[in-house]
Amino acid sequence: MKQIKLGLLGFGTVGGGTANILNNTLPEIERRLGGEATIEIVQVAVRDLARQRAVDTDGMQMTVRPMDVVNNPDVDIVVELMGGTTLAKDCIETAIRNGKHVVTANKALIAEHGNELFKLAKQHQVMIAYEAAVAGGIPIIKALREGLSANKIEWVAGIINGTGNYILTEMKQPEADFAEVLKTAQELGYAEADPTFDVEGIDAAHKLTILASIAFGIKLQFDRVYTEGISQITAEDIQFANQLGFEIKHLGVASRSENGYSLRVHPTLVPQSVLLAQVNGVMNAVMVSGDHVGPTMYYGPGAGAGPTASAVVADIIDIIRAEEQSDAYRVPALGFAQEKLEDAPVVEIDEITTAYYLRCFAKDNAGVLAKVTSILAEFKINIELLHQEPSSQNPDDATLVMITNAVKETALNKAVQALESLDAIDGKIMRIRVDSLD
Amino acid sequence: MKQIKLGLLGFGTVGGGTANILNNTLPEIERRLGGEATIEIVQVAVRDLARQRAVDTDGMQMTVRPMDVVNNPDVDIVVELMGGTTLAKDCIETAIRNGKHVVTANKALIAEHGNELFKLAKQHQVMIAYEAAVAGGIPIIKALREGLSANKIEWVAGIINGTGNYILTEMKQPEADFAEVLKTAQELGYAEADPTFDVEGIDAAHKLTILASIAFGIKLQFDRVYTEGISQITAEDIQFANQLGFEIKHLGVASRSENGYSLRVHPTLVPQSVLLAQVNGVMNAVMVSGDHVGPTMYYGPGAGAGPTASAVVADIIDIIRAEEQSDAYRVPALGFAQEKLEDAPVVEIDEITTAYYLRCFAKDNAGVLAKVTSILAEFKINIELLHQEPSSQNPDDATLVMITNAVKETALNKAVQALESLDAIDGKIMRIRVDSLD
Repeated sequence: MKQIKLGLLGFGTVGGGTANILNNTLPEIERRLGGEATIEIVQVAVRDLARQRAVDTDGMQMTVRPMDVVNNPDVDIVVELMGGTTLAKDCIETAIRNGKHVVTANKALIAEHGNELFKLAKQHQVMIAYEAAVAGGIPIIKALREGLSANKIEWVAGIINGTGNYILTEMKQPEADFAEVLKTAQELGYAEADPTFDVEGIDAAHKLTILASIAFGIKLQFDRVYTEGISQITAEDIQFANQLGFEIKHLGVASRSENGYSLRVHPTLVPQSVLLAQVNGVMNAVMVSGDHVGPTMYYGPGAGAGPTASAVVADIIDIIRAEEQSDAYRVPALGFAQEKLEDAPVVEIDEITTAYYLRCFAKDNAGVLAKVTSILAEFKINIELLHQEPSSQNPDDATLVMITNAVKETALNKAVQALESLDAIDGKIMRIRVDSLD
Repeated sequence: MKQIKLGLLGFGTVGGGTANILNNTLPEIERRLGGEATIEIVQVAVRDLARQRAVDTDGMQMTVRPMDVVNNPDVDIVVELMGGTTLAKDCIETAIRNGKHVVTANKALIAEHGNELFKLAKQHQVMIAYEAAVAGGIPIIKALREGLSANKIEWVAGIINGTGNYILTEMKQPEADFAEVLKTAQELGYAEADPTFDVEGIDAAHKLTILASIAFGIKLQFDRVYTEGISQITAEDIQFANQLGFEIKHLGVASRSENGYSLRVHPTLVPQSVLLAQVNGVMNAVMVSGDHVGPTMYYGPGAGAGPTASAVVADIIDIIRAEEQSDAYRVPALGFAQEKLEDAPVVEIDEITTAYYLRCFAKDNAGVLAKVTSILAEFKINIELLHQEPSSQNPDDATLVMITNAVKETALNKAVQALESLDAIDGKIMRIRVDSLD
């Protein structure tokens, strides 16, 4: 029987969760491995040796030096759970050079430095597994790289940040607004003290970068992802969207078009009839459409000790199996052989064609609709749905809400500029993209 | 480069879909395989050699004798798409004895004869892959066997028959009833001329048998699945369920309890707030709850040429990869090593504890509620939700709809018998199980 020895870098939430699984579910895992292998944590790099741990650390050597772990000849697989893109990168590179396999939950590191890390790993014929980096406990990497491998993937669209989805879900409550809901999310531990990373879509952009690469077989291109956060969304917009039959979700979308790939994270109106629109709270879900399979969806908890560690340990089991295989036949890091990855163009956001939700405030109700529609018509934009309601302050004023047909962003930008210059239109026009996900 | 040669048994919908994928998406698949292997169909067993095919069969040898294919020394992988449990079984056994790997979409065969087939395959160190046998294009077998391998699975609950889900979805339309909707389903090709297999839950029971085995690591036990169809469900029940906040779904449920496993297929009230309740039409979805990951769900098309062939070809790619691996380290057929499968007891349906939806017709409204509640109280059954409405014919008569707390089936059976013996209760009481899926 093989004794697989793990070295952990970091022993916070996910590290503790990983130890917890191995302490409690190992007999079930060994039933899966048929007695061919067992797994143990032999060394852990922590920040504070003195800290009391909730999990049993019996038999684990503790160190404050991560490099001890990656240089430990006893360690077979390095599990990187420390985060960050500098020391974590150094450690992983050293581990690879030492011939060790790597499991990581570090989405920023994979999205920003995956191309070089995967290349290095290939040279040393070791594996880097990162199921935990996207959508926590949902085995979405496996579904894309293996489960749907018979398909040319057409698009991927996901709710891949639980904090943002929690906020948008809670904003449906009467009287809720963004700032208040964010405060509650922070109190509940769903949002960080500095929420920028989640709320402005950077975390989602990291995950989307990875999803796009394994969907299309293209290089990781984090710097080409268009990213827009949810801090401008109001409770009123959510209500209007609901009235028109939509939910507002913060989506990561990767799609294939004639002139290249589109990678973007932004608030999106999704028809309520689409299952993804019904994903609420901190849960994650990723829709994948393949040319043969059609639309599929994967749903589950996107964060937390148990779910993330579930993905980490599944990766460890996969590595144990695939280690007994020649490197050429292993599932490649991005699902496609490295030398076959496309260096594909990413389309600028201006070139994207999408439907739009537009909300504007008309100071003088009379005749404004005629003006608005004629300007939109000038730019060949049709209104598919329209909702107009008088202002509660002054019945002569009105809020105008529209869903347009699919138009190029450049055309829409010009139309919005023209609308905003109308005397009857007060202030900026709120604009949110609409995706029917079909 | 390896030339993987496929022999197909059957060339109907899924066989044609498989050829279509290899004709159209092979370059993308070869990008995944990194030029290490390519795939071609070399021989196909069909019923009628003269029949015109929609797909290009260039380079494929056609035969009417399936045994030719499984005995063809050129064939590496036999793809069984002919269905049935007699000739298909003989062919697969011969293929295995000839050292060929097998891919099949045959749920009946796996559910009823998988135990012996997997044993034979293990002896000959070949693989049997069957992703297409459950939930068509959804990679649920992979998710359970590999993606969630760090978990002890607690329960699985799925909408695993598209015909049944289409019928229940359409029955929500005003004036729809079971017989009419079934007729439409037959006209659309969603239901067979003899719908028994789908509507009475036999097809779902085959799939549930497989899901339960790979979830818990137990032997396939099709004959122990409790199966109840949907032909007794009325549009009225669906409306009442909706009013109380539930949808009626035909679920396959496998769960673990202290005294054994429960395997059952029956109509079920699911809270509308649970995502699975929102899965409509012919789509399939499977919820899986693991001890570490919590609840997850997998959604997609459960049938059709493209989706089913997507699963077939993914299995072929997996086999090509795993062929280069010692058999001991391959993912076992049921996710757990064969010698570690539990010969677990399956709990009789009488021993199950579940909440219930009860609907009865009270001839004389006055005082009947007091009688009903006192009888239920006698059997320690509480009413969690109650809806009473007067009959449209006679305001003195009433329909009484109740949701009970979770009770043992034996207690509920006795209570229902006692209620039915009341003079005020007219006819049989409609009873449908309720599952909150949490």
